[in-house]
Amino acid sequence: MISNNIRIGIVGYGNLGRGVETALQQNADMELVAVFTRRDPRSLKVIGENTAVHSLDEIERFRGEIDVLILCGGSKNDLPVQGPELAAMFNTVDSFDTHANIPEYFEKIDQAAKSNGSVAIISAGWDPGMFSLHRLLGEAIVPNGETYTFWGRGVSQGHSDAVRQVPGVKAAVQYTEPIPEAVDEVRSGKLPTLSSREKHRRICYVVLEPDADAEKVKTEIVTMPNYFADFDTTVHFISEEELKAKHSAMPHGGFVIRSGKSGSDNLQTVEFSLTLESNPEFTASVLVACARAAARLHHSGKTGAHTIFDIPPALLSPKSPADLRKELL
Amino acid sequence: MISNNIRIGIVGYGNLGRGVETALQQNADMELVAVFTRRDPRSLKVIGENTAVHSLDEIERFRGEIDVLILCGGSKNDLPVQGPELAAMFNTVDSFDTHANIPEYFEKIDQAAKSNGSVAIISAGWDPGMFSLHRLLGEAIVPNGETYTFWGRGVSQGHSDAVRQVPGVKAAVQYTEPIPEAVDEVRSGKLPTLSSREKHRRICYVVLEPDADAEKVKTEIVTMPNYFADFDTTVHFISEEELKAKHSAMPHGGFVIRSGKSGSDNLQTVEFSLTLESNPEFTASVLVACARAAARLHHSGKTGAHTIFDIPPALLSPKSPADLRKELL
Repeated sequence: MISNNIRIGIVGYGNLGRGVETALQQNADMELVAVFTRRDPRSLKVIGENTAVHSLDEIERFRGEIDVLILCGGSKNDLPVQGPELAAMFNTVDSFDTHANIPEYFEKIDQAAKSNGSVAIISAGWDPGMFSLHRLLGEAIVPNGETYTFWGRGVSQGHSDAVRQVPGVKAAVQYTEPIPEAVDEVRSGKLPTLSSREKHRRICYVVLEPDADAEKVKTEIVTMPNYFADFDTTVHFISEEELKAKHSAMPHGGFVIRSGKSGSDNLQTVEFSLTLESNPEFTASVLVACARAAARLHHSGKTGAHTIFDIPPALLSPKSPADLRKELL
Repeated sequence: MISNNIRIGIVGYGNLGRGVETALQQNADMELVAVFTRRDPRSLKVIGENTAVHSLDEIERFRGEIDVLILCGGSKNDLPVQGPELAAMFNTVDSFDTHANIPEYFEKIDQAAKSNGSVAIISAGWDPGMFSLHRLLGEAIVPNGETYTFWGRGVSQGHSDAVRQVPGVKAAVQYTEPIPEAVDEVRSGKLPTLSSREKHRRICYVVLEPDADAEKVKTEIVTMPNYFADFDTTVHFISEEELKAKHSAMPHGGFVIRSGKSGSDNLQTVEFSLTLESNPEFTASVLVACARAAARLHHSGKTGAHTIFDIPPALLSPKSPADLRKELL
């Protein structure tokens, strides 16, 4: 009964954790040992019939039974605490996405992982993650040029939350959309300088509290500093039923476009794009592929924090190096 | 006068070699030591005023003065011989692109490089190269799906050569074009099964010899097995002047599209695309970034053959790992 599968633990069971659970079912070389939660384990409705659920407090006794922990908590409150604690006990993968704090987070995780001889892959997902990889590739291959990242059309969790904080708002969903003219200008190789307002627009679907003043709510949203003031923002007031029916999905995506001139003044354009019906499920898929890489890096004697920049791509694939060369090169 | 720059040698000075020479000028951490040629070195018109040119016969005496050789010869006749010979003396990078022979070529280069304690990166460029990387990433992250590679619109050297072999043809250029309806179908997530004819079409611009029979030439082209018989091929007869004026550029590009379903049946589409005004200059840019990686891999004690699948992406960038995390992650 010895399996060579990579044994995975999931920490945190929101949209991302559920995405990891279903993603693991698509990867025959991996198996789920258990989901760990801070909630009452009996209260969790897991997807898999046989998925074990344990309290996060018990996790230490699973050392030796789990090859890689996939951390599915939030970047604001969960990962800054859980990340270093768990990297000191297990190989870990996470999607820490507070861009400004990545260098500090990397150092803490690196120290924790090295203290345990384990590998931690941080900030995996699509941005940070796949988009970051393409910002690096674009710059390295077209050094004389500009990189443009566009997000959307998709639901931004942070901006939706910000709208929900406005007094009088009962529920809300915010979509970020790239402005097509800006994307076209970038693709054409004009290397434009674009303001925030010229790159993206924001569309809010808002359910009001019964007694709310719509005009006041709208003004408060569109003038909100950092979140909306620098963008053209449209606010639509809709019913709670319509919000549920039409805006419950979590699509997202976007483009990383690198455009520049090669040696003899030839325009070279490199574009990476994602069109995702489920943002959390895609992030989960990247985490799972990175968990495979983490297990292999650890097996080869590596320790400490890594990012997508440090991972030989072959380690993400279940195929052998020889098969990859034969089939995909 | 000690420089920390990566010292590069170029072997072979056709379009690709010239592309590498100009690409090096865009990379401040690299310097060109010399171009090596099988022709009379004095006959070579190099781009850089100070570019040294030597006979390939003299290359052995440059061991110790060159960190990485970039091999710019052809995959049919040059690289199968030069690759193993030079990998036994230097770190090397090449763009070997005979897909079917890559496994065998890899083994030969691996042996040669290991015998010398050097690093060789093979099959770098865009296909094989960047497109291969995206076939790997797509499959690893969206395991339940299909990968589609489209090439063009661009000039195919191999197909242009094939047309030129037809009796009665004085000169010719062949463009490969993806069929827009097929690309749309793939992007829509329908996972279509597409024949060669449904994916690409071929357009030939042909200059006839004075006494040639146009109908006969056309029939011979469009029925040519392997090259044209399986495609819808259009043949345009034009003057030599028009061919020179309108068809001397070397644009190319294409798409790698991975489309599939994540755990809860959500469609996820990942696309990588290139729009290149100069095919050889882009390949050259990838080779130069890979030369940086080769120097670093060698410096870190690695030996043997590598492909883009084996290279931690950070090694392609001139930036430090800390700067990459801060600026691009």
